Amino acid sequence: MTHVKAYAAQSPTSGLTPSTIERREPGAHDVEIAIEFCGLCHSDVHSIRSEWGTTKYPLVPGHEIVGIVSRVGDSVEGFTVGQRVGVGCMVDSCRECDSCLEGFEQYCEVGMVGTYGAPDKRNGSVITQGGYSQAIVVDENYVLHIPEGMDPAAAAPLLCAGVTTYSPLRYLDVQDGDSVGVIGLGGLGHMGVKIAKALGAKVTVFTTSPAKVDAALALGADNVVISTDSDSMAGAKHTLNAILDTVAAVHDLNPYLRTLARDGALIQLGLPSEEMPAVEPGLLIRKRLAYGGSLIGGIAETQEMLDFCAEHGVVCDIEMVSASELDKAYDRMVAGDVKYRFVLDASTL
Amino acid sequence: MTHVKAYAAQSPTSGLTPSTIERREPGAHDVEIAIEFCGLCHSDVHSIRSEWGTTKYPLVPGHEIVGIVSRVGDSVEGFTVGQRVGVGCMVDSCRECDSCLEGFEQYCEVGMVGTYGAPDKRNGSVITQGGYSQAIVVDENYVLHIPEGMDPAAAAPLLCAGVTTYSPLRYLDVQDGDSVGVIGLGGLGHMGVKIAKALGAKVTVFTTSPAKVDAALALGADNVVISTDSDSMAGAKHTLNAILDTVAAVHDLNPYLRTLARDGALIQLGLPSEEMPAVEPGLLIRKRLAYGGSLIGGIAETQEMLDFCAEHGVVCDIEMVSASELDKAYDRMVAGDVKYRFVLDASTL
Repeated sequence: MTHVKAYAAQSPTSGLTPSTIERREPGAHDVEIAIEFCGLCHSDVHSIRSEWGTTKYPLVPGHEIVGIVSRVGDSVEGFTVGQRVGVGCMVDSCRECDSCLEGFEQYCEVGMVGTYGAPDKRNGSVITQGGYSQAIVVDENYVLHIPEGMDPAAAAPLLCAGVTTYSPLRYLDVQDGDSVGVIGLGGLGHMGVKIAKALGAKVTVFTTSPAKVDAALALGADNVVISTDSDSMAGAKHTLNAILDTVAAVHDLNPYLRTLARDGALIQLGLPSEEMPAVEPGLLIRKRLAYGGSLIGGIAETQEMLDFCAEHGVVCDIEMVSASELDKAYDRMVAGDVKYRFVLDASTL
Repeated sequence: MTHVKAYAAQSPTSGLTPSTIERREPGAHDVEIAIEFCGLCHSDVHSIRSEWGTTKYPLVPGHEIVGIVSRVGDSVEGFTVGQRVGVGCMVDSCRECDSCLEGFEQYCEVGMVGTYGAPDKRNGSVITQGGYSQAIVVDENYVLHIPEGMDPAAAAPLLCAGVTTYSPLRYLDVQDGDSVGVIGLGGLGHMGVKIAKALGAKVTVFTTSPAKVDAALALGADNVVISTDSDSMAGAKHTLNAILDTVAAVHDLNPYLRTLARDGALIQLGLPSEEMPAVEPGLLIRKRLAYGGSLIGGIAETQEMLDFCAEHGVVCDIEMVSASELDKAYDRMVAGDVKYRFVLDASTL
């Protein structure tokens, strides 16, 4: 057992405070990682505030982890000490169901083991603790290689925000020349723009905020539609092949469905906490549309995404924060005041 | 101009009464068809009662037409006098948009010309009149060959109910061994069961009516789930790859979405007239599901479906009615009292 510094929530209202947590000794298949950086995801806020289900405290959040391998178990084959690696949203899954065997561990039929806040069945069912900490120990099957030359801090959010947008674009087989819409320009949305552009798509950003037009264009968007402007929305009618919806707030999807061309799909990535207005079946029927969802990505797919991003020079736009600034960063994140992802510098823990 | 006998509605409340309509002389590319049979579709009821948009009267409904070629235009290449042919839900489209050029005329970006009640732009914008009549004249591009040996009356509803279920099953690439659900066991639903079985799928029928269990099994269903029985629904959890929803009444889709396995799709075929309860985004996200729609099928696809049905011995289960029984048949159809499709014997007009 190793004791490492971390920042943990003690209750829904405690915020994050300095703490010490235990990490297991690396087992035969484990990789021990000295954490350098960890991205701040909206899920972290929901979790420490117990807004999704019932959180068990204390809880160390963080599932966009980049660091250096410090020890490896005897049977580890894919990693050696000193390599830069990453850990995303999961640290285990059943490894036996069809989804696991097909490389879609995020859809594990038994249930994946989240990087924080989940009982770790293969390790005494202790509750997993995340990346706002100095080190983590993870089975090598759930560890990713960070490509050479990639900025490690800016790579961290790829482990969640990157693969969450990459996976559906690949699943929909978005190709060079396709037209992709992205609803919302936050952490997920800005990655959606960059990755869709890198795939060769023409990208339309939908935003309620005229102030974000320049930022969207600067990220590479070909077109920005102010979604509250019905003329602007009408101009996009039947033009898009796929839409990534990164907005978790309640909103009416029907105006966006009208911007899809035949066989188009709108994929919801953010999970609203309240009921959304119903989708109009007639819109789906008349253009053979699909309204779907997608959950992060599988391990092999996450590695593929990292390699793809390295090849295309894609990383996140980040703002670095120190451990003492975490609570303030959360408040700014909830207010949408970040371009586009906060990353914790783990050396400040 | 030829005058032919027909049954037409004169107002939303008139019912169907004997009438005479004009058919154009066959143009160079036209096929004139002496109608033998015409299926009765729920759309016919909605249309003559002006429940969808604003119907122009008089209106002769009917878009599940089978008959014998009586004359052909000079330039017709695909049909000769004496052949048995069919006409489905459309008699023209723009022939220039991507959808038309790709064989998806039902999604024509200008708008397909419906077999009845639509302005026929290439023919003086007269309002098209359907198959409850002795003859029809249709451009050969929108005429289908009825395979040799297929019962012509039982083939008629394939032109709408058949292709409406065949098209999404093919679009979803349903294969031998896949599991398909069918919600509702009416005209569309019973075709969904037969065609899904012919494709090699294991079929589950969802019905609210315990009285329909035996009928579903008799049609070839492997499994029947009473959708109002939560235990029965729970038993089907995560088992299906695709669901065809043939029910046009308002209903909650979320219990059905829970029966889909990862990457499954629920395809809505019936168009409810009132708002449906919202789909839960979390269900879509956690299993990468899709909620989609599908509209009849293209012309080439309709021919493919007819040939497929001939090869697999699939036709509709029908009940023949004479012209004077049409109003009574509509009432029974609305009450769901038909196994499974009424077909008009056009010799009784």
